[in-house]
Amino acid sequence: MANVDLNEMGKRAKAAAKILAQASTETKNWALHLIADGLSQQQAAILTANAIDIEAAKVKGLAPHLIERLTLFPARLNGIANDVRHVANTPDPVGEAFDHSVTPNGLRLHKRRIPLGVIGVIYESRPNVTIDTAVLAIKSGNGVILRGGSETIHSNRALVNVIQAGLSQAGLPLDSVQFIDDADRGLVTQLLRLDEYVDLIIPRGGNGLHQFCRKNATITVITGGIGVNHLFVDDSAEVASAIEIIFNAKTQRPSVCNTLSTLLVQRDIAATFLPLVAQRLDQKQVAYRCDAESHAILIADGRTVLPATPDDFGTEWLELTLNVKLVDGLDEAIGFVQTHSLQHSDGILSAKPDSIARFLNEINSSVVFANASTRFNDGAQFGLGAEVAISTQRIHARGPMGLRELTSYKWICEGDGQVRT
Amino acid sequence: MANVDLNEMGKRAKAAAKILAQASTETKNWALHLIADGLSQQQAAILTANAIDIEAAKVKGLAPHLIERLTLFPARLNGIANDVRHVANTPDPVGEAFDHSVTPNGLRLHKRRIPLGVIGVIYESRPNVTIDTAVLAIKSGNGVILRGGSETIHSNRALVNVIQAGLSQAGLPLDSVQFIDDADRGLVTQLLRLDEYVDLIIPRGGNGLHQFCRKNATITVITGGIGVNHLFVDDSAEVASAIEIIFNAKTQRPSVCNTLSTLLVQRDIAATFLPLVAQRLDQKQVAYRCDAESHAILIADGRTVLPATPDDFGTEWLELTLNVKLVDGLDEAIGFVQTHSLQHSDGILSAKPDSIARFLNEINSSVVFANASTRFNDGAQFGLGAEVAISTQRIHARGPMGLRELTSYKWICEGDGQVRT
Repeated sequence: MANVDLNEMGKRAKAAAKILAQASTETKNWALHLIADGLSQQQAAILTANAIDIEAAKVKGLAPHLIERLTLFPARLNGIANDVRHVANTPDPVGEAFDHSVTPNGLRLHKRRIPLGVIGVIYESRPNVTIDTAVLAIKSGNGVILRGGSETIHSNRALVNVIQAGLSQAGLPLDSVQFIDDADRGLVTQLLRLDEYVDLIIPRGGNGLHQFCRKNATITVITGGIGVNHLFVDDSAEVASAIEIIFNAKTQRPSVCNTLSTLLVQRDIAATFLPLVAQRLDQKQVAYRCDAESHAILIADGRTVLPATPDDFGTEWLELTLNVKLVDGLDEAIGFVQTHSLQHSDGILSAKPDSIARFLNEINSSVVFANASTRFNDGAQFGLGAEVAISTQRIHARGPMGLRELTSYKWICEGDGQVRT
Repeated sequence: MANVDLNEMGKRAKAAAKILAQASTETKNWALHLIADGLSQQQAAILTANAIDIEAAKVKGLAPHLIERLTLFPARLNGIANDVRHVANTPDPVGEAFDHSVTPNGLRLHKRRIPLGVIGVIYESRPNVTIDTAVLAIKSGNGVILRGGSETIHSNRALVNVIQAGLSQAGLPLDSVQFIDDADRGLVTQLLRLDEYVDLIIPRGGNGLHQFCRKNATITVITGGIGVNHLFVDDSAEVASAIEIIFNAKTQRPSVCNTLSTLLVQRDIAATFLPLVAQRLDQKQVAYRCDAESHAILIADGRTVLPATPDDFGTEWLELTLNVKLVDGLDEAIGFVQTHSLQHSDGILSAKPDSIARFLNEINSSVVFANASTRFNDGAQFGLGAEVAISTQRIHARGPMGLRELTSYKWICEGDGQVRT
């Protein structure tokens, strides 16, 4: 049923990416500014297309928060355009030179960043991701094939028109950014096996999508964006600061992947610490899933709390629910985190340098924190500029992925006639 | 027919790798020294096992050069043991800290190297690769599952016994290094899909093996180790130096992947340059595959040379055969290399800084050379210590891959109570 020839798209993406890879920073930035301007100039067309998607989603009975996510309006579109301009102002990683050395025989070596090639991005029904991803790909010199949620197909068509017009006007190949304009799910599987043309797959969605990509792809998949995140508070932690960090990590934006899932508290301080932190969390009506001991403490404090099931400790809540468990101390905390973390964001709140050092050494999550909120696992917060994903795997890049993480490198070896003996 | 449970091997490898990841440099080096010593102490057992493989290979009618490659003898075994000691003396990448920064709100960030996890290595009938790979994996804190050629199964069994004895004596889990002790080819496909436990696949073999891995793996595969390598000589090149570089790149070790395949000569200098370089290459009886113009020049020079077919320019010769083609100049040379290179090792021989700069910029091979032999694309030559592969792909690592390229990293974020606003 597909009216899309993915093989042909791949071939064209690869050819376009070769040209884009050699484009100057100025030309790429010009294209980005044209796209940002196009989002304003084409506002009516984009909102009309978006209205069709919204209407269809309502008829289909899509949940209100999903409809909210796919909805565009002038202020949101302006925000997206400003994000595009921000990427234009972010340094271009392509061509960056690093790791300079000179060998004993006088060869001058360094590495120089080059684009990856073509990236396949599979994502849910959020039209802003269409622009974000396309723009990061263009700036890093990569071609991209977009596969957005079927509920946003009209919006994406309008947005990709704006992107391709900008590319074209700047003299860049419009096949650099292509979009799978067909809701056939079989095309996702085809994209995952298009290894002849696609160099990297970035899924942006839930665990099911990640699992599906991993099982079906013959291309490297960036696993990430899902967290079961822990904070461990020991008996030396500064109480007021620990409470604020926990409050921030749990409540500042509960629907995202760097939010706190499980609080581990050293047993010695639990009877005094837990009621204090709960009092702060009450301000956001946080609910609890507690092990037997923490359950007893919070019940005694006059709260209604649920006992945790073993599954709860493996759940990414994405809402104002917090797992709580008491532990003997550092050893048990490290063991528990190693078993339950999805390697996204985990931290220790402590004043003991030795305990901090051990936690930072033995926990191998993409970002490991000491005395700071897990909410900082974010490309913008870490100074990377924009962010395309947060990787929790160990191949290619890890943690927040910005423009640089969308590049590879080549070695440059300059000599004066050296031969190998 | 398989008597190997690969799923079980994967599970045990992953558990072992978690322990190995936390092992100290001293413990890992101790294990490596025990393995090196074990190769001497168990020499009789290893050579007896190897003799069984050699005998079977002869009965099977294996080509003499393949039998040569699988043959062990005391001096070769000593050489392998010394390579193991060299890896023990190479710095441990695990724990290395880099990319330090401080965010505006005072968070102290850096990255710290961690092992990848478990590596699957699929290789041909060369028992030295069994030791090389196992030792690099141990030093970099990674578990490894080895799948060697079926012709070396007895040798590999004896070698892995030595490795596991060394691990065990040093107190490291012996499941860190496992070997698929079964020639069933279906197990290769199983290994390629063991994404639950294996983090990276490194094929060491010909193009067929690489293609097979790429098409069947649900795990990232390091593509590399195959080269169709070019040198372009322009009209400004210092002739004597260019001739020595070409001679070295073609003849110093013709059977390896960084050897020269195709010589591109600027038309203006061809009539004088080609006979000179051919005179030097005569010392090693190099044969030629020539385009029409270079064919005419070498025939006029009194040589017997073959005309090149289009396929020749895509062939990795691995022997003393050189493709030759004349080009107008830099543009045609760059275009030709971009079309025909497998992105391994390509270079320019020139005295013009602008031409060199353009070639180094527009050719994106894993190593791009100016005025040096392609034979330098090598981990040891570049100062990486040992080398596990030469990657020509753009995901994860590129060019020579040493110990560092067998690691990932985590971010460390240290604060003083910072929360996100």
